[in-house]
Amino acid sequence: MPLPEKALIERIRRHARIRASVIRGIGDDSAVLQLPRGQQALVTTDFSLEGIHFRREWHPPNSVGHRCLARGLSDIAAMGGQPIAAFLSLALPRKLPQFWVDGFLDGLLALAAKHHVVLAGGDIAESPAGVLADITVLGSIPARQAILRSGAKPGHSIFVTGALGEAAAVLQKLFSDGHKQIGKSEHPRHFYPAPRIEVGIALRRNRIPSAMIDLSDGLSSDLAHICDESVVGAQLEEVHIPRAVFANAPVDLQLALHGGDDYELLFTAHPGTRVPARVEGVPITRIGTIIRQPGIRLLNAAGKSRKISPQGWEHFRGKSK
Amino acid sequence: MPLPEKALIERIRRHARIRASVIRGIGDDSAVLQLPRGQQALVTTDFSLEGIHFRREWHPPNSVGHRCLARGLSDIAAMGGQPIAAFLSLALPRKLPQFWVDGFLDGLLALAAKHHVVLAGGDIAESPAGVLADITVLGSIPARQAILRSGAKPGHSIFVTGALGEAAAVLQKLFSDGHKQIGKSEHPRHFYPAPRIEVGIALRRNRIPSAMIDLSDGLSSDLAHICDESVVGAQLEEVHIPRAVFANAPVDLQLALHGGDDYELLFTAHPGTRVPARVEGVPITRIGTIIRQPGIRLLNAAGKSRKISPQGWEHFRGKSK
Repeated sequence: MPLPEKALIERIRRHARIRASVIRGIGDDSAVLQLPRGQQALVTTDFSLEGIHFRREWHPPNSVGHRCLARGLSDIAAMGGQPIAAFLSLALPRKLPQFWVDGFLDGLLALAAKHHVVLAGGDIAESPAGVLADITVLGSIPARQAILRSGAKPGHSIFVTGALGEAAAVLQKLFSDGHKQIGKSEHPRHFYPAPRIEVGIALRRNRIPSAMIDLSDGLSSDLAHICDESVVGAQLEEVHIPRAVFANAPVDLQLALHGGDDYELLFTAHPGTRVPARVEGVPITRIGTIIRQPGIRLLNAAGKSRKISPQGWEHFRGKSK
Repeated sequence: MPLPEKALIERIRRHARIRASVIRGIGDDSAVLQLPRGQQALVTTDFSLEGIHFRREWHPPNSVGHRCLARGLSDIAAMGGQPIAAFLSLALPRKLPQFWVDGFLDGLLALAAKHHVVLAGGDIAESPAGVLADITVLGSIPARQAILRSGAKPGHSIFVTGALGEAAAVLQKLFSDGHKQIGKSEHPRHFYPAPRIEVGIALRRNRIPSAMIDLSDGLSSDLAHICDESVVGAQLEEVHIPRAVFANAPVDLQLALHGGDDYELLFTAHPGTRVPARVEGVPITRIGTIIRQPGIRLLNAAGKSRKISPQGWEHFRGKSK
């Protein structure tokens, strides 16, 4: 361990301002939390493993910390929920430099503070290999209002927030050029993605989505999850898929379709539901329709449709799984 | 990955019988849970890392799965709480045999079923090195009744459940003899420890403990945590420390004092509180007194006392940290 466990815990404790909902945070066997009356609990956990989800030579430590928490916050956003507290299990190699640990915590705690999330517990261990982090996020949502993956029905429209493929385009460039060519601050959707918490809450409050998921694996994979859970299929309209701009040009369609780590929201809505063009300042684009026939089809500009397979990226290995 | 992620998730889903409190388990972005009215949430997370917390050549897969969940359940027990749901983040090396994954899940799910805990979510990833597991347990407790580490006061008595040092004695033997000489079923406190959930709940209901912790790092380390959080010291009475029997003899005092992984409960109680000799069939032994002076002292049979330092075991590396 690069610093005594006690010192690390003390540092986290100082940063973690206790909110009313966190009765007891770091420093006991378990955290104790009070959910607001009438609310249900949301719980999600996500690994961030060196060599799998990030590379230390590519990602600055505060980006790794930010992304670690963003993965969990994005899952709460996808339910339409409010994140309350995070729990970090962190295993560190013996020779990790102190500045790296500090930077990781800086990135994680800055994102937590932005969303009023308390780091309320976790575990610290020595790592057998590389930096290993697992984030658990506890959120809350009014009873029976969680937006599930299973509510999509044939005829519902498919929408996506923001634009897709930037994170994957950065990844492709990292693989080809190495990290020196990439401006970290120019590509926040890769290095510092913003989980769409406010958008998710606004959509839920306005009862817009019939089903929702966050885009962590990629559009084709995550839409397939909605289709599986809702027992439906989907038809996407190629020309409407909003492609992010990278190096002064829209990203390749394949990156927008299959690239992961965008952390935008994908949702469906009944055709009678009015869906605004923007929610909380984020553009919302209609990209297709839920159909009865299983599988995902892509309709091109010429009106021809072909079946596409889910091709989620296996992060940082540069090939589809 | 030794088996497709989807197949593994399907297997876990089949096993995880949904309880009323788990509104939505595996298969969405987050789990959705309903806490009983008037209850607060407890959350704890614990790593189980190959080479740090277990060794594949020493521990059968069902023991690793059992111990993984037991670590989390024991933390809920130490608050006096009722575990509800578990979340498993599991990273597996590419070449791990299928029987190992099956055995791991068998051990984890059997312990979960025994305590009516639902495996309600998690994450699955490829591991960069060895089997990496992180368990999150969500529990519930009546509001304001969680037993914290910070409630010990000078004059309170110190108690421990069961007997100490068996897990560490097994570990010592594994280091000296290798795994072939150890009968797994003969040493359940090491291979299949029973988290003291019922004992913790009974103690809390009877308002016995003023502070409580579970013995995962070892008596000297975990008592130091209570002392730190309560801003007190402690005096232990050597002759009263209940030593487990190993190979037909009580374990060495050092193992009972500093050996980890026993998962017994350590608690303090006001001197006016009646503490039964057994709770839920488990013996309770008075082992010392909380004192004002910081630090931990050990009083021997001759009436001489000496200061001892916390010496938690760094699991499976065979040296103190």
